[in-house]
Amino acid sequence: MFRRKLSSLASKVNDSSTVRLQQNVSKVNCRVPRRCKVLSIDNMNPHVKTMEYAVRGPIVIRAGEIEKELASGKKKPFLEVIRANIGDCHATGQTPLTFIRQVVTLCAYPELIKTSDFPTDAKQRAQRILDGCGGKSVGAYSDSAGVEVIRRDVADYIEKRDGHPANYTDIFLSTGASDGIKSIMKLLMTGKGGKERAGVMIPIPQYPLYTATIAEYNAYPVNYYLDEDNGWALDIDELKRSISAARPECKPRAIVVINPGNPTGQVLTRENIEGIIRFAKEEDLFILADEVYQHNVYAEGSEFHSFKKVLREMGAEYQDMELASFMSTSKGYMGECGFRGGYTEVINLDPDVKYQLSKSVSAKLCPSVIGQACMDTVVNPPVEGEPSYELFIKEKNNVLGLLAQKAKMVTETFNAIEGLSCNVVQGAMYAFPRVEIPEKAIAEAKSSGMSPDALYCFQLLEETGVCVVPGSGFGQREGTFHFRTTILPPVDKLQVLLSHFRDFHQGFLQKYQ
Amino acid sequence: MFRRKLSSLASKVNDSSTVRLQQNVSKVNCRVPRRCKVLSIDNMNPHVKTMEYAVRGPIVIRAGEIEKELASGKKKPFLEVIRANIGDCHATGQTPLTFIRQVVTLCAYPELIKTSDFPTDAKQRAQRILDGCGGKSVGAYSDSAGVEVIRRDVADYIEKRDGHPANYTDIFLSTGASDGIKSIMKLLMTGKGGKERAGVMIPIPQYPLYTATIAEYNAYPVNYYLDEDNGWALDIDELKRSISAARPECKPRAIVVINPGNPTGQVLTRENIEGIIRFAKEEDLFILADEVYQHNVYAEGSEFHSFKKVLREMGAEYQDMELASFMSTSKGYMGECGFRGGYTEVINLDPDVKYQLSKSVSAKLCPSVIGQACMDTVVNPPVEGEPSYELFIKEKNNVLGLLAQKAKMVTETFNAIEGLSCNVVQGAMYAFPRVEIPEKAIAEAKSSGMSPDALYCFQLLEETGVCVVPGSGFGQREGTFHFRTTILPPVDKLQVLLSHFRDFHQGFLQKYQ
Repeated sequence: MFRRKLSSLASKVNDSSTVRLQQNVSKVNCRVPRRCKVLSIDNMNPHVKTMEYAVRGPIVIRAGEIEKELASGKKKPFLEVIRANIGDCHATGQTPLTFIRQVVTLCAYPELIKTSDFPTDAKQRAQRILDGCGGKSVGAYSDSAGVEVIRRDVADYIEKRDGHPANYTDIFLSTGASDGIKSIMKLLMTGKGGKERAGVMIPIPQYPLYTATIAEYNAYPVNYYLDEDNGWALDIDELKRSISAARPECKPRAIVVINPGNPTGQVLTRENIEGIIRFAKEEDLFILADEVYQHNVYAEGSEFHSFKKVLREMGAEYQDMELASFMSTSKGYMGECGFRGGYTEVINLDPDVKYQLSKSVSAKLCPSVIGQACMDTVVNPPVEGEPSYELFIKEKNNVLGLLAQKAKMVTETFNAIEGLSCNVVQGAMYAFPRVEIPEKAIAEAKSSGMSPDALYCFQLLEETGVCVVPGSGFGQREGTFHFRTTILPPVDKLQVLLSHFRDFHQGFLQKYQ
Repeated sequence: MFRRKLSSLASKVNDSSTVRLQQNVSKVNCRVPRRCKVLSIDNMNPHVKTMEYAVRGPIVIRAGEIEKELASGKKKPFLEVIRANIGDCHATGQTPLTFIRQVVTLCAYPELIKTSDFPTDAKQRAQRILDGCGGKSVGAYSDSAGVEVIRRDVADYIEKRDGHPANYTDIFLSTGASDGIKSIMKLLMTGKGGKERAGVMIPIPQYPLYTATIAEYNAYPVNYYLDEDNGWALDIDELKRSISAARPECKPRAIVVINPGNPTGQVLTRENIEGIIRFAKEEDLFILADEVYQHNVYAEGSEFHSFKKVLREMGAEYQDMELASFMSTSKGYMGECGFRGGYTEVINLDPDVKYQLSKSVSAKLCPSVIGQACMDTVVNPPVEGEPSYELFIKEKNNVLGLLAQKAKMVTETFNAIEGLSCNVVQGAMYAFPRVEIPEKAIAEAKSSGMSPDALYCFQLLEETGVCVVPGSGFGQREGTFHFRTTILPPVDKLQVLLSHFRDFHQGFLQKYQ
């Protein structure tokens, strides 16, 4: 019984080690006279069991344990864990932008608006937000879609970004982008099983929120492979292959595109986006555009084009297409992950469906109002002539400049290591290098029920303290192996990380040659 | 087609007026050559359509419109809308507690810790939280279950409250209590339809989050009626009747108890809780104890007993029962709704299931870290001898004292109006009076597809500006009519509200006599 459960878990949590799983699988308490659990692994929601979220999976739990071991004085071949598993900017040393924190602070403690300790533009922003809050307090619930003045600022930001109108009633603030994405995906479910399930096209590799949400709602993941040989572009023929293959299994309803890419770091060209939109129109698909990295574009010649802008500049026959675009305070130059700010813009959503969306989010009451205020600082930053402008631009450019430098550094280093290859990190915060894994290592991994890249990443962690996420957590072409690393650690730590990598990789090859 | 849709919507949204529905139901855009919507009211997730959340339903939308009409100079028989529809303390004039805001502000802007503008205990609390955050920033993601030091403070709080051990690994911080409740309910789903669906016992009247979540997951609501004639107590025979009636329809798995009660304001006696626990044991039910109003107990002789404490003080045969208890920063004396702080304590959760819960919440990344800090101030308030203690206690007692006064005032006034009767508001923030509605009004309501109490509340709103929620949004015994009002408005406004009520009710009776 115990063995059966263990192996079934192992087959699902494929980036975990058997050792970890043994710790997680407990004995079922069915001894007489104690009753069985009312809620057990065997009778709980099977869709939750199917869910995976590798970015915070077993390897990250192990990293936390190693940190505790180090803190308790245990000797390791390294001094600290370098966490490159998650796009968590502040955790890896980035300092918050002054203006952002000033505005949220003034919102939380309006007494400070009366002092002379804060610049007038920050005070004015905060007062404006407070005036839009019930009882002028961020402690009041906002409308479920968010504080109206912030929704209006978001619409203005989009309008300026794209050069096309945006309407604040199409803006829904959310608890990070994840919450917005889940709210839209939820609407797309058919409520039916088997071949009547909703099919959602997702890139492979993908950000695991998508597969997790698809699993939770018992929908069908329609996987399309990004073209690694072509800088992780979306190949339209591959989209066609993918949807044709899935039609017998589900009702395809939507396509998810992540641009700039996570975990792959590519920035889509305008032509590529046009092709995707044409495909979505032909196939009657709702487009979910995950555009949370819209400020994170580094490579020369790369530029962010929003799906909405591209769509608006295509022919009249595209103008009624349905699209949702997602944004967050967690990424970009701000990296304010912990504030859980985000928004969704819905375009051409059927008014009846929009009413249902409003109703559906109302049961969650509202996203954190401080998180909403944080979102406001991103869409309504200081402008030239305002007292905070210079510092804001300096801090913003500093963060983005360092990220660009690190994107280059990571790409070049990985490509200089024999057996590793890495597409140019054009944007976002990640590299997704491909790693050749020797046959003997593959065999060892398989015999312990792990994926080979999980074996690789676990050994990397144990030997060097570097925590990255196995490619299997994001999906990859059969027989290829990758890992995702963020480019976030400070330059000196990133150098340590990369040099650890070089040494580890050589040792790994020798061990399994 | 339009008519059919309208009437089907009307039958669901039974506390809406026909006028409102016509505004919400749009024409389906199927004219040639424009294509039909990919996502329409007819093909969207049917479970989302079934969801209702009356606290923010059509009557509240109408209240917002009336506010805009008043602002634009339109003449009404009243000067302002009094919102008594939602437990939103700050929106109705309560001022935030100084200590709470100081700690969260220092967390958001650690520079201020260096100044002499804040008391040392607030600084110490903030620094301790920051030390537990990645990169010492509330802008970093926390562990998905929350910042460890805050989880430990929650466990200590529970231990002190109950006199029984609590373990921080059983604490999961959440985005308000709602998010925690949904996370636990999600685990209880069977993933099957029809008679294999999970049944969740809920009180009627209930807080509509429960029916909304049950609808969203396509589970089965096992309604048990609270005993209005007995101060809204839980009658164990009624629980037995309810579960027996539901067995042919579903697999009953859990019972939800809200104590102190929402919308009913009762505080359960210890004996009543013991009876519920015995019932849950006999019937193999998981207990969900919604205890967000644990600080809100007003009536003489009433006392809050946590389910966990009562369970721990029952016989050995109860000690392995599974229980989840929910708490929030939104209610109590703090009323910090907008911060979206909350926690769940799980007791005796199967370790495998707990691992699945951890995995499931990890895809949401983490609750707002500032919201978590806010939760910390509630579980770790200033103690005697600390510089903030006196002010904190004064502010806390002021809020709770006023609520106790208003609870009494509301009960007495409603009971003095002919045709209204109201149980004593022992706790929480609401009264749920019963209202006799004349036959002619019932007939009029039915002919326009509304529930009679919705007709009553809409007319109350249009004539007096008072916004309360029809009882049908919470559930009530067939043939009885109620409404829920909060007791939150300031005393002078509450007096206006109650006097409006008296006049309106008399007019209503005359109109339909």
